[in-house]
Amino acid sequence: MKRSYPLSKVYGLLEAGLVVLVSTALKGRNNIMTMSWHTMIDFNPPLVGCVISDRNYTFDIIEKTKQCVINIPTLEIAKKAVACGNVSGAKEDKFAKFGLTPAKASRVKAPLIKECYASLECDLADARMAGEYNLFIFKVVKAWVDTGVKNPKTLHHRGGEAFMVAGKTINIKSKMA
Amino acid sequence: MKRSYPLSKVYGLLEAGLVVLVSTALKGRNNIMTMSWHTMIDFNPPLVGCVISDRNYTFDIIEKTKQCVINIPTLEIAKKAVACGNVSGAKEDKFAKFGLTPAKASRVKAPLIKECYASLECDLADARMAGEYNLFIFKVVKAWVDTGVKNPKTLHHRGGEAFMVAGKTINIKSKMA
Repeated sequence: MKRSYPLSKVYGLLEAGLVVLVSTALKGRNNIMTMSWHTMIDFNPPLVGCVISDRNYTFDIIEKTKQCVINIPTLEIAKKAVACGNVSGAKEDKFAKFGLTPAKASRVKAPLIKECYASLECDLADARMAGEYNLFIFKVVKAWVDTGVKNPKTLHHRGGEAFMVAGKTINIKSKMA
Repeated sequence: MKRSYPLSKVYGLLEAGLVVLVSTALKGRNNIMTMSWHTMIDFNPPLVGCVISDRNYTFDIIEKTKQCVINIPTLEIAKKAVACGNVSGAKEDKFAKFGLTPAKASRVKAPLIKECYASLECDLADARMAGEYNLFIFKVVKAWVDTGVKNPKTLHHRGGEAFMVAGKTINIKSKMA
C-alpha cells in the first residue's frame, strides 16, 4: 500500500546509481570526489552527464582543466570511496590520506585510481548546464577495465549513510541496448 | 589488472542506475516506457534528469503533455518491467498487455502503476536539452511509496540482457546528503 511520501526524501529512492570516484588534477595536484548523481546520455562515443556541486573543489578544477577520470570502486574499498566524499580536496591530498594510488592516464592529465576495477578517461563535452544545474556532460575518450571482475560488487547510494551493494545478476530477454 | 576496453561497451559499466517505468497519458490512452538513464539533479524540490530517446513514443507524449509518473519496479515484476521496453506503446496498450494496473494520480493526468512500490508524479521543468541530448528535466510534485518495503529488490541494467538485482544495504559514515 503506497502512502504519500515527503519530497525531501525522494532522492534516496532514485539516486541508486553507481557510486563513482571522479579524479582530477590541477597544476600537478591530484584530487578525488565521490559522486552518485550521473547518467549515461549517449552510447558511442559514450556521453555521461554528471552533477557536480559548485560547492565542491572538483567543480573549479573541471572548469579549468576540462578533464576528469570516472573510476568505479567496489565493496573492497567502500569505506575509502565514501570517505573521499567527506573531506575537501582543497585542503588535503585524498590519495595520500586514504591510501589510494594514482596511475598515469593515456589521454588526460587526471590520474586513474589503481584500486578501482574500471577507469574512464573523460574530456568535458558541454558545460552549458553547469551554471544552472551543476550538470557537466563528459565524453569518455579511453576506458580501462579489469575484465577479470565478473560480477563487480558496486556501491549504490540509498541516501544518508545507506549504501546498497550490488546483488546477483539475472538475465531477462531485452531489446534494451 | 585493468586493460583497454571498447568505448562501445562503456555504457554497461555506468548505467547501473535504477530501472524505472515512465507512465504517461495522451487523450485518455496510457503508456509505459522502461528507462535506466536518469539522474537526480537537485534535492528539494526534487529535480530528475531523464534521457528519453526521440525514437520512443513517450518522447512525443511528454513534449505534448509535459507530465509523467516515474514508477520504481522490483524483482517481483522484473519480466513485465523489461518487457515494457521491448514493444512500442504507439501500437499497444502495455497496461493491458502485461497485466499492470493504472491508478489515478493526484497532480498529473498520467497514471501511477499500482504494482510498483514507489511512484513519483512529475511536471516537465526544462526541455531545452531534449533536442540535442534527449534530456528532459522533471520536477517531482508528489511522491507515493510503500514504506513497508524495507530493502526493495530494485533492478539495475548492466547492459544487454543483464540486470543486477539490489543486494544488501550497508551503512557507512557519510556526509553525503
